[in-house]
Amino acid sequence: MKNRSWGGRFKGVQSKEFQKFSASIDFDSKLALYDIAQNIAYAGALAKAGLLTSSELDRLERALRGIEKEIRDGKFKYREEDEDIHMNIERRLKEKTGRLGGKIHTGRSRNDQVATDTRMYVKENTKEIIRLLKNLRKAFVRQAEKHIDGFMPAYTHLQVAQPVRIAQWFMAYHEMFARDADRFADVLKRADVLPLGSGALAGNNYGIDRKFLARQLGFKAVSQNSIDAVSDRDFALDFCHAVAVMFVHVSRLAEELVIFSSREFSSVILPEEFCTGSSIMPQKRNPDLPELLRGKAGRVNGNLVNLLTLLKGLPLAYNRDMQEDKPPLFDSCEQALASIPLVTVMVKKLKFNTPLLEKRIADGFITAVDLADYLVLKGTPFREAHHIVGSVVRECEERGIRFTDLSAEDLKKHSKLFSEDIFSFVDPKKSPDRKKGIGSTSRKAIEAQILRAKKELK
Amino acid sequence: MKNRSWGGRFKGVQSKEFQKFSASIDFDSKLALYDIAQNIAYAGALAKAGLLTSSELDRLERALRGIEKEIRDGKFKYREEDEDIHMNIERRLKEKTGRLGGKIHTGRSRNDQVATDTRMYVKENTKEIIRLLKNLRKAFVRQAEKHIDGFMPAYTHLQVAQPVRIAQWFMAYHEMFARDADRFADVLKRADVLPLGSGALAGNNYGIDRKFLARQLGFKAVSQNSIDAVSDRDFALDFCHAVAVMFVHVSRLAEELVIFSSREFSSVILPEEFCTGSSIMPQKRNPDLPELLRGKAGRVNGNLVNLLTLLKGLPLAYNRDMQEDKPPLFDSCEQALASIPLVTVMVKKLKFNTPLLEKRIADGFITAVDLADYLVLKGTPFREAHHIVGSVVRECEERGIRFTDLSAEDLKKHSKLFSEDIFSFVDPKKSPDRKKGIGSTSRKAIEAQILRAKKELK
Amino acid sequence: MKNRSWGGRFKGVQSKEFQKFSASIDFDSKLALYDIAQNIAYAGALAKAGLLTSSELDRLERALRGIEKEIRDGKFKYREEDEDIHMNIERRLKEKTGRLGGKIHTGRSRNDQVATDTRMYVKENTKEIIRLLKNLRKAFVRQAEKHIDGFMPAYTHLQVAQPVRIAQWFMAYHEMFARDADRFADVLKRADVLPLGSGALAGNNYGIDRKFLARQLGFKAVSQNSIDAVSDRDFALDFCHAVAVMFVHVSRLAEELVIFSSREFSSVILPEEFCTGSSIMPQKRNPDLPELLRGKAGRVNGNLVNLLTLLKGLPLAYNRDMQEDKPPLFDSCEQALASIPLVTVMVKKLKFNTPLLEKRIADGFITAVDLADYLVLKGTPFREAHHIVGSVVRECEERGIRFTDLSAEDLKKHSKLFSEDIFSFVDPKKSPDRKKGIGSTSRKAIEAQILRAKKELK
Amino acid sequence: MKNRSWGGRFKGVQSKEFQKFSASIDFDSKLALYDIAQNIAYAGALAKAGLLTSSELDRLERALRGIEKEIRDGKFKYREEDEDIHMNIERRLKEKTGRLGGKIHTGRSRNDQVATDTRMYVKENTKEIIRLLKNLRKAFVRQAEKHIDGFMPAYTHLQVAQPVRIAQWFMAYHEMFARDADRFADVLKRADVLPLGSGALAGNNYGIDRKFLARQLGFKAVSQNSIDAVSDRDFALDFCHAVAVMFVHVSRLAEELVIFSSREFSSVILPEEFCTGSSIMPQKRNPDLPELLRGKAGRVNGNLVNLLTLLKGLPLAYNRDMQEDKPPLFDSCEQALASIPLVTVMVKKLKFNTPLLEKRIADGFITAVDLADYLVLKGTPFREAHHIVGSVVRECEERGIRFTDLSAEDLKKHSKLFSEDIFSFVDPKKSPDRKKGIGSTSRKAIEAQILRAKKELK
Repeated sequence: MKNRSWGGRFKGVQSKEFQKFSASIDFDSKLALYDIAQNIAYAGALAKAGLLTSSELDRLERALRGIEKEIRDGKFKYREEDEDIHMNIERRLKEKTGRLGGKIHTGRSRNDQVATDTRMYVKENTKEIIRLLKNLRKAFVRQAEKHIDGFMPAYTHLQVAQPVRIAQWFMAYHEMFARDADRFADVLKRADVLPLGSGALAGNNYGIDRKFLARQLGFKAVSQNSIDAVSDRDFALDFCHAVAVMFVHVSRLAEELVIFSSREFSSVILPEEFCTGSSIMPQKRNPDLPELLRGKAGRVNGNLVNLLTLLKGLPLAYNRDMQEDKPPLFDSCEQALASIPLVTVMVKKLKFNTPLLEKRIADGFITAVDLADYLVLKGTPFREAHHIVGSVVRECEERGIRFTDLSAEDLKKHSKLFSEDIFSFVDPKKSPDRKKGIGSTSRKAIEAQILRAKKELK
Repeated sequence: MKNRSWGGRFKGVQSKEFQKFSASIDFDSKLALYDIAQNIAYAGALAKAGLLTSSELDRLERALRGIEKEIRDGKFKYREEDEDIHMNIERRLKEKTGRLGGKIHTGRSRNDQVATDTRMYVKENTKEIIRLLKNLRKAFVRQAEKHIDGFMPAYTHLQVAQPVRIAQWFMAYHEMFARDADRFADVLKRADVLPLGSGALAGNNYGIDRKFLARQLGFKAVSQNSIDAVSDRDFALDFCHAVAVMFVHVSRLAEELVIFSSREFSSVILPEEFCTGSSIMPQKRNPDLPELLRGKAGRVNGNLVNLLTLLKGLPLAYNRDMQEDKPPLFDSCEQALASIPLVTVMVKKLKFNTPLLEKRIADGFITAVDLADYLVLKGTPFREAHHIVGSVVRECEERGIRFTDLSAEDLKKHSKLFSEDIFSFVDPKKSPDRKKGIGSTSRKAIEAQILRAKKELK
Repeated sequence: MKNRSWGGRFKGVQSKEFQKFSASIDFDSKLALYDIAQNIAYAGALAKAGLLTSSELDRLERALRGIEKEIRDGKFKYREEDEDIHMNIERRLKEKTGRLGGKIHTGRSRNDQVATDTRMYVKENTKEIIRLLKNLRKAFVRQAEKHIDGFMPAYTHLQVAQPVRIAQWFMAYHEMFARDADRFADVLKRADVLPLGSGALAGNNYGIDRKFLARQLGFKAVSQNSIDAVSDRDFALDFCHAVAVMFVHVSRLAEELVIFSSREFSSVILPEEFCTGSSIMPQKRNPDLPELLRGKAGRVNGNLVNLLTLLKGLPLAYNRDMQEDKPPLFDSCEQALASIPLVTVMVKKLKFNTPLLEKRIADGFITAVDLADYLVLKGTPFREAHHIVGSVVRECEERGIRFTDLSAEDLKKHSKLFSEDIFSFVDPKKSPDRKKGIGSTSRKAIEAQILRAKKELK
Repeated sequence: MKNRSWGGRFKGVQSKEFQKFSASIDFDSKLALYDIAQNIAYAGALAKAGLLTSSELDRLERALRGIEKEIRDGKFKYREEDEDIHMNIERRLKEKTGRLGGKIHTGRSRNDQVATDTRMYVKENTKEIIRLLKNLRKAFVRQAEKHIDGFMPAYTHLQVAQPVRIAQWFMAYHEMFARDADRFADVLKRADVLPLGSGALAGNNYGIDRKFLARQLGFKAVSQNSIDAVSDRDFALDFCHAVAVMFVHVSRLAEELVIFSSREFSSVILPEEFCTGSSIMPQKRNPDLPELLRGKAGRVNGNLVNLLTLLKGLPLAYNRDMQEDKPPLFDSCEQALASIPLVTVMVKKLKFNTPLLEKRIADGFITAVDLADYLVLKGTPFREAHHIVGSVVRECEERGIRFTDLSAEDLKKHSKLFSEDIFSFVDPKKSPDRKKGIGSTSRKAIEAQILRAKKELK
């Protein structure tokens, strides 16, 4: 290993197996373009500090642009014996510029270098995720607009609870993914701090202008403590958490779609393009996309745990364990990037079986709360009204009938306050609009939700 | 179970075992005072909506204050057969006010009630944690001020890396806990949304003024979608994540203190009040506090996983599984509340063994980077300088000597650029101040860090 | 703290807050009776080694029996300042026997003591869980016997797949819990190793007869290495894993019951004693028990992660972090003990809506595989048969009819091999018995499963 | 997608993005050779059931052998549009054998097929891991033999506890990895059950001889319930758990080596081939291998959590989420396979700094227990002896001396029982052999450990 950049003091030869085991180039090559950008900015800072002449800077920059092209064209040769992306690029730089290339690492350590690249990765991908979430949120809003006059039973405990406008269901998911976007914005805020210039952990001897570097690389702030700068991976934890929470939401949507598209529910029709058949059962039409998405919740959960466990109890500052931060970080990111657009198209193409759902809300005792509310408005304490309606339900169940099959006389046996006007109260399609207040399922309240969302999404 | 508030329609009797299994009163009694406050505010909103007369409101409020007193005095009788805190308080309210008490639940569901209480819990405790973190951060800053002229080796890979001022080490931890405080501030922001008024999931029929409720209960905003309002537990996930990340920091500090207080390191002396002896070995003085704190990282990690797994794949809106959100949430909160003050006192009383540490940085090759920097400043490309210093180290190791034992002649064999002035470069106590730029370990840069922190902590 | 058993060398006073933080007595008091048994056995071993006279042994044993009674009667006073259960009992022993009590800890450390108690706890509870699982398995077998002639659609992807006998569904769960029992048997095997006699970590100076101790305490083996003996918590990990896997099974059953008891499925009727109503919706009948059980999967998953994270990277031998092994271990155990009997009663009382299920299997294309099999048996390669049946399904869907609505002529357009006998092939109640081989859903195969299970459960 | 094997009934075209998202061929190609073996065995069973003529069987087998060769030679073309490994191989088989290839899937589903392949994968790799663990265990035993007369301080709480023979430390790790091997043997036992023949979930119509298949494929047993057979992933959970526990052990070893190879400890010398230098600090020699290994504990912990979360709450039988079982399973397996050999070489080449360690045990109060034991053997109750030695330690600390610096007179002030012979008791190199009983650190007890281990490892 005599060519190893760090090898001056070593006599022995590294084991081949260990070289393979410890090399990170097979995954950190994803940082290649960030590393190029960082190198270019860093060369600029070296020149500014008087460590490079302007012609040296020029040569380095040109060489780095050349390497960038090689990377983009898929022609760059990654070598395992160069360990990681940083050493691969430095090696190539030296091939292209000779001794001059040996200057690029002045005052810099891989510790601050990799922290910088990784933050650049998180920043760019977080922005992309926020953009993708915007599209997804728009899809929910559009569907809400389309379904504002459709009705469905809403569930608690997977038992029919109350009738709602279908739009309310779509907007519930909009809210979740809006929170996700907000959470990712916080991730971005905390990732937007430049560690470069911290050296191995103590800073550097050359007066590198860190604010200049931050401006060049588009960072809002520079880190305030060199030891912390190279050992901090909070931004990766925050990112993995935001992905994990988002997939909780995805998994809940997925679960509902799997259930709703069962033959027994038949509430929604999934776009056929996201279903597959069975290798043995010719009649099957399986909701594969929602199932796969639901499964991803486990994967990103595992990634977060991986990272939390990895970092637990590590002494300051950099330790080699931290190289293992990238596989879970990259995987969570890639799952998010691949999944959100598919969720978006699935939401866009989702069809509710509205005739069936209208029939379904007419059945059963879905407006039992309204019945109780009727009594309350006539002065009965709610708890008593709840009890009275409980007996009404029981009577209906025993007789095998619905609220609407009861006569006013039947009802009066339960409470004298019932009179004929009760029947408009138990009409499930009128129930939603009786709901008042911000966020409720009345047409008016939903319109306000939609309006607000559209403003945010402009 | 005929007395169950929801029991009107049920004929059977609930199994005793199931009652015990499903009751949450043994843990959600922690929400008691939030529930009282919520009930008082809600009674106000009912009155505002014309559902209570002002004298009814008065009676309810007085009764609720009475119950509050019973709770504070430890005289309130929690009953398992009342299932949860909400029904326990409602039952007591009815004992005190008769039929009138039956009005309090008008238009409200336990679904929006528990979401509201839990958010109040998270909000209050998050504020307390931020306050505790402020004290902890102050402790780091004070120690940094005290140790600004102390030196220690900083480590990477637990191998001596470079000499730093001890203050830099303290400020590294300050930065971590400052980020934690910032993260908790985001948790607070997202928890500060009132779900009350969402009813079971559809809203309510009574025109409850939700903004009034928000003002009464000190919430900044009201939730925008009733289905989402009762099914959302993101704020609990965010809280548990913030605690988990904070304990990553705690565990890293703890690990360092365990190692630093080993006899072999002897770098720090832990306050004896946080150590214990052994039941068998009379000489032992064990760093129990840092060890226990390190172990808590597993606990809060488990709580986060618990919650993420719990919520995975739940259909909307409320499901009974969600009752299980409270044990991990409460436990993470309590671990944080109990731990931060102990970390604070431990940090305050921490003593560094400065004479030993000064000796330690004089030993070895801790200023090897400075040696390389010397050559760089004389024009050698860094990568070559690094290699040259590598050979110097090897020579020293083979001869069993240190940099300072070499003569200028010895050094010149490695590079002609070495001359006498090199010896001030390899003085480990001068090395830190040679570090330039924001965040570095020079006295000046640390003073800036401290100043900035003190401003933030005012 | 002058009374601390380990305090001889300490001068300072321990912080009250730290005392509270570090005391484990509030949870390890659960080990009290194991600790008594261990103390009695250990006193015997001390006598055997000549360190106690037989009258001393007598006095100690009588005192320990007395303490045992205090514990059983709830009269034992646990003191936080005695830290843990071991020191609480030793303190009480000294109160009762004076100086003599000071001999009990001879050659023993809390390190081997707590490892022994915890293994005793795991062993006893594992046996109890295996016993409880036996009851649960019997419940499945009994239901299978009862439902051997009932039919239901089995699902993949929550889409109707093939008709099965309901017994097959019950026996599927029997298999899972049988594997759990087997896994717990392995846990027991690995927990059944006695660490006592390992001292702090090096063994003891007194020739304590460890095999004698093992016999007295019912351990199959003694540990083979004293350092490993006090630092090993594999048995706790294995136990928590076995619980976590078991709850994966519980959660799958729970999920199916929640879905099956939705109004849309109406496949099963849950015993009312395990359902609850809603505080606001009088009509609700929620499947609370399965939901709570499903939620426990998160909890025990979190416990396992807690423990794995806790132990990661701990140096040998005992570290105080390991005190935190007990909360997750105890919690997983208690969740298992509380849940299995409830699952058992729920399974016992479960009712399938067989008339509806018979109707359901008659609907749709549930026997599509059988249709393909028909063609295969007449010589068509399966893949072609699958394709042909796919077209038949499509035709039916387009015409809005079922297989049985097609004429033989219709079918012949798809393949000439179809003739009149096809209609018995597509009879969904005949399909199961056409399935051959071990483990299949034919009556004969299920009878074999049941027979086998009953033999195992004898 | 008209060529999809399951496509007969589908009209639409699958989205390209979804195809990419849902294809598993990029990871399940690792099952290729198992799938070939399974196909060959299955063709045999089809022939035995009269569904293939012997010449058809011949042709299929030859074609499959050809495909196997293509796979081994890296010439097999995996196509994403064929979704998974099973369909890729079936497609190729049809290319080679035409219509005949369409017969291979008769009575089989991908559900039982993938369960079978995955079990074959787990079985083979588990055997390999057990083999690798055997080598690792041998390395510990050999080092123990070599170091039977070396001494080191053993630690609790990272504080010097008692002197042990270095062999005892090596054998502690032997015990851990012996338990791992035992745990993997249980994994193997539970994985060794053949699901093939279960069809989609109900069994098959053709009388496939499942015991014949088991014999052909080397399975000990066949699954007993067809629904369970296709939905069971316990074996994957058990495997991932066994890997996670093993890495807890690896991480503990790694942690100790990182600490022991710090300059402050200098207890061990890591083979240079497993260390790397720093890109900036020329003097560094970092313990990279142990650090990377320690980090893997997070990774495999995450994999287990992934799988547990994935499976939580899935209804029976197969769901597409389960496709996501393979990435964590394969990753845990690969981490184990890559890591154990490196741990083995590292252990083999590990050097203890025995002169320094001998000096270290002579220092301090490492034999304090022995001092107490001395008093106990003269009749002092242990608790008093412990207290007395505590005061001796305190006196020494105050005077800045060691036990051996005290005179007999000094000691007598603490207890009259001390006399001259005490000094042989406090000789740290004599202490270990005074430890008696199985598993202790005396030479004799260690020899017994080694003998026992060697027998097991034969």
